[in-house]
Amino acid sequence: MEKNQPVKTKYTAFVASSIDGRIAKNSKSGIDWTSKEDWNFLQKSLANTDAVIVGHNTYKIYESRLKKRNTVVLTSKTVKPRLFGSVFFLNPKKINLRNFLQSKNYKNVSILGGARVYAFCLKHKMLDELFVTIEPYVFTNGIAMFTGDSFKKYQFLLQSVQKINKKGTILLKYKNEN
Amino acid sequence: MEKNQPVKTKYTAFVASSIDGRIAKNSKSGIDWTSKEDWNFLQKSLANTDAVIVGHNTYKIYESRLKKRNTVVLTSKTVKPRLFGSVFFLNPKKINLRNFLQSKNYKNVSILGGARVYAFCLKHKMLDELFVTIEPYVFTNGIAMFTGDSFKKYQFLLQSVQKINKKGTILLKYKNEN
Repeated sequence: MEKNQPVKTKYTAFVASSIDGRIAKNSKSGIDWTSKEDWNFLQKSLANTDAVIVGHNTYKIYESRLKKRNTVVLTSKTVKPRLFGSVFFLNPKKINLRNFLQSKNYKNVSILGGARVYAFCLKHKMLDELFVTIEPYVFTNGIAMFTGDSFKKYQFLLQSVQKINKKGTILLKYKNEN
Repeated sequence: MEKNQPVKTKYTAFVASSIDGRIAKNSKSGIDWTSKEDWNFLQKSLANTDAVIVGHNTYKIYESRLKKRNTVVLTSKTVKPRLFGSVFFLNPKKINLRNFLQSKNYKNVSILGGARVYAFCLKHKMLDELFVTIEPYVFTNGIAMFTGDSFKKYQFLLQSVQKINKKGTILLKYKNEN
């Protein structure tokens, strides 16, 4: 019997940010300040995705939409992966997330945040492409885009810059060079 | 006797940031990760500036360069403004910074950080233009670009986007709309 070649999963992170790199007021707050152009871009991009990864707070905020998708919710509140409908709750300290996603044969996985999930995926080599939408605001406080344990210099390569509306929302596409 | 019309001071902030909105590893660390294109842009811009505003930590890091300029160092460690050569040390809780700068007849003032100084100037209507250089790194930790007391939505208007080198450093110019 021939064994199938394992699928190479591609990981794409989508971030909507203020100019000063803030993605939310606090860990419980939704996003009501992003442009419709960013929303449209995200929805179009997610049409090609096999599964999304989110943290527990992000899942709670967008539950009604996310439970319709293949969603992996990273949480410390479970030991074994638990499946409800199309939503897996998984503790990445107990289970190897990469292997888990590979076993599902997902080709395209999207990372939707929050800040600790973006940093987790980057640290664990599950972030190949990064889309950052910068909305024209400064917040001066709130949740920073990536929240990792320590300062580290991850090199990216800019692939494109687009201005997506008149007020000056820009969309940056980066490739992870690490 | 005719009184002179007071000069209208224009305030321009210059920020060099990672993709994730970090400007430094910590409050004592210098910046060794910005591109030479950003450095050249900053030096050229500062040629037209009458004075720069910095915080005490930023001043300590760049003292040898800054003491050659008209520099205003914001510090809580003094009550009355103190002048050493061309460098004023001033406590913005004790003295009205806007009035002080106006009294000096400065037309162009540049704000060079750090994070609390950017937020202070924005809050006190001393930030008309904002240049943000985004270097193609993600740091996941460190000092966030603006550090204010609370979340607030300041609207900006994007005026230009430029890619300033091959590796993908971009330079954003914004106007404060508040």
